[in-house]
Amino acid sequence: MTAILAVEAHDVRFPTSLSMDGSDAMNKDGDYSAAYVVLRTDDPDLAGYGFTFTIGRGNDLVAAAALQRARPLVGKSVDAIVNDLGGLYRELQSDSQLRWLGPDKGVVHLALAAVMNAAWDLAARVARKPLWRLLVDMTPEQLVDAADLRYLSDALTRDEALAILRAHEPTRAARIADLEARGGYPCYTTSAGWLGYSDDKLRRLLQEAVDQGYRHVKLKVGADREEDRRRLRIAREVIGWDAKLMIDANQVWDVPEAIERVNELAEFKPHWIEEPTSPDDVLGHAAVRRAVAPIGVATGEHGMNRVLFKQFLQAEALDFLQLDSARLGSVNEILAVYLLAAKFEVPVCPHAGGVGLCELVQHLSIFDYVAVSASLEDRVTEFVDHLHEHFTDPCVVDRGAYVLPSRPGYSAEMRPESVAAYSFPDGGYWAAAR
Amino acid sequence: MTAILAVEAHDVRFPTSLSMDGSDAMNKDGDYSAAYVVLRTDDPDLAGYGFTFTIGRGNDLVAAAALQRARPLVGKSVDAIVNDLGGLYRELQSDSQLRWLGPDKGVVHLALAAVMNAAWDLAARVARKPLWRLLVDMTPEQLVDAADLRYLSDALTRDEALAILRAHEPTRAARIADLEARGGYPCYTTSAGWLGYSDDKLRRLLQEAVDQGYRHVKLKVGADREEDRRRLRIAREVIGWDAKLMIDANQVWDVPEAIERVNELAEFKPHWIEEPTSPDDVLGHAAVRRAVAPIGVATGEHGMNRVLFKQFLQAEALDFLQLDSARLGSVNEILAVYLLAAKFEVPVCPHAGGVGLCELVQHLSIFDYVAVSASLEDRVTEFVDHLHEHFTDPCVVDRGAYVLPSRPGYSAEMRPESVAAYSFPDGGYWAAAR
Repeated sequence: MTAILAVEAHDVRFPTSLSMDGSDAMNKDGDYSAAYVVLRTDDPDLAGYGFTFTIGRGNDLVAAAALQRARPLVGKSVDAIVNDLGGLYRELQSDSQLRWLGPDKGVVHLALAAVMNAAWDLAARVARKPLWRLLVDMTPEQLVDAADLRYLSDALTRDEALAILRAHEPTRAARIADLEARGGYPCYTTSAGWLGYSDDKLRRLLQEAVDQGYRHVKLKVGADREEDRRRLRIAREVIGWDAKLMIDANQVWDVPEAIERVNELAEFKPHWIEEPTSPDDVLGHAAVRRAVAPIGVATGEHGMNRVLFKQFLQAEALDFLQLDSARLGSVNEILAVYLLAAKFEVPVCPHAGGVGLCELVQHLSIFDYVAVSASLEDRVTEFVDHLHEHFTDPCVVDRGAYVLPSRPGYSAEMRPESVAAYSFPDGGYWAAAR
Repeated sequence: MTAILAVEAHDVRFPTSLSMDGSDAMNKDGDYSAAYVVLRTDDPDLAGYGFTFTIGRGNDLVAAAALQRARPLVGKSVDAIVNDLGGLYRELQSDSQLRWLGPDKGVVHLALAAVMNAAWDLAARVARKPLWRLLVDMTPEQLVDAADLRYLSDALTRDEALAILRAHEPTRAARIADLEARGGYPCYTTSAGWLGYSDDKLRRLLQEAVDQGYRHVKLKVGADREEDRRRLRIAREVIGWDAKLMIDANQVWDVPEAIERVNELAEFKPHWIEEPTSPDDVLGHAAVRRAVAPIGVATGEHGMNRVLFKQFLQAEALDFLQLDSARLGSVNEILAVYLLAAKFEVPVCPHAGGVGLCELVQHLSIFDYVAVSASLEDRVTEFVDHLHEHFTDPCVVDRGAYVLPSRPGYSAEMRPESVAAYSFPDGGYWAAAR
């Protein structure tokens, strides 16, 4: 019987602040980082890899929390884990002492995400399937058993969740074939639009995006009024008016300010305004949405848990739900949010970028289309072309689409040499930078 | 010029799980703990003391986060800190890398609370005033400058906040005199009602509470249906029908279940149901409130930040706002919540208990009455008689009221011998328990 031998948690940080990659109105100097978890088994050829994403300081806290979260796994049989990932999630989540530090939010929840991402990766490796295929091969009952539906029954009952999944079960194969024929799951790029880039660099990167086949691009806004207008003007000059232009304020505005600032940019016809205000403010987003229509409202990369998303949907506060694969409690909680979104008929367009998030979200988006929403309408998943070289099975994007992953797992394994070089503060890169 | 010489953060844990003190339907085995911060200055007679409260595991994470949060303080002059506590709060809060781990929630926010509580304690000591008096002696402008009003302007503008404070400024002295004449600020007790206590112990503790002059008592509910009814029946037998009986479910129910279970207990005429469901669920609480009236809805001990409380008020989702003095970002964020509550005319009845929370909240409640709400109607502050012996200036409760503190500071300093004995895992108590 194969069992979990040990849990490792690594504080891995990349010095992205040096190049202003990832710079926006709120986050001016992020060092993209992963609290990276490895579940070692007594089979040297089998381990589970997972992580959550942070932007630097505090990544050590998340790694330390992940070790605490993962403690009950040591000694458990791999079969017991992979055959009841819902049970494992509930066991880890219900530690009442750690729960006090959330519940279901902040450092302890990010840590739970890292650990459960590794458990799902392990399950997919045991099954010798990419994660999306593991999920697609599960029955509606198995999926609902794995989902965290606690606190959701006023919006989504277990029976409703089952009905959503059963409705599309007979046609799953056709949608897999459709994605294969299309060349993958559609995505958009944020690589061009960081606030710290010069106008020339912006123009060049936008042109590259158009040349690569992207029909959606996203720009950061929320700094200087005139600068926002100048950058959006450049964007429309390069991409034209048929392509979709999204804007992202990264939470810098109060609600009245958001309404004023977004309406000032209406002439550039943004497809959505992302994170106009505090990520916790359901009612604030609802007010913004009413005031800036037909511009859509998008949010979710800081969406802390399923209870928040339930309320966003109940309050009709968003047009695009951007769940984060490393902030929610892994597939267990993400499943619940996808099912809620399907019930309320809101498209999920996951947040990605950072380090490794693109590797994760491709699996989720494919699963959503095949088994939950059965729709690509208004759906497009973020892609940012940074740091993929550190993964053993990096995502592949071609002509504006995520190519379906084929290797076993959740694409979450980092190259050992990258982990060694960028471990903070003693890895080779950081030791040399001191 | 006196300056901050060093910051200490201690992981202090008390073995309360052994006696089932603090046991409820969600938290069965809490070890009441403090992530305890000391701001040392180069004056050996001057330091600032603060903490946040947790229930055990993970307290080390909060202490580590507090050290990171407090790093910018080292070397700062004490004058600069105490003369601009709003500026200090904004500086610490705006660390964009740590912000990613929240924002304004979970471990990093608890740590900010601990550090800023110590800064406010330091300011009160420098002024040689108890914290409530320091606050009461501040002008409306000074208070509003210290308050964190970000993301609130759709519900409360700076001018509205000023107007609330100015309206009651001329009569502050009269309300101080009133509290002194009454013998203090009214409180209620939870000491009797923990779920893990036997019926005999419950009956005895309830009788003691009545004998001590309490007119409000609170019982934990949410475990077994019949047990809840039996315990409430005992409570009414002992306290009669004139005293107020509050019940607290500690988040164990979904929304439909909460409505059903609370209505089943309506015959015992609860004054409020506390934490009927997820603490993040504004719309869920609003639904419960509509369905269980006239029983009031109370929540807030897990209320993560001011943006959540803004929505609770906007959605008319609660009757009693139970802010937590160690979960919100210290006085800076608490001020904002008190001002919001005053605008929406909802009484604030702070959460207390745990370790040290009573010591903090007495200052806040007095300040609220004197300077913000100017009302005692429907207001009563929690008191739990545990662990006060570990503080150098413990709160004093007499005939159901918190006696006004008179010594300088925020009453947050722990006895050095308690810190030494209960530091985890190497303090004397824990070393002996291994």
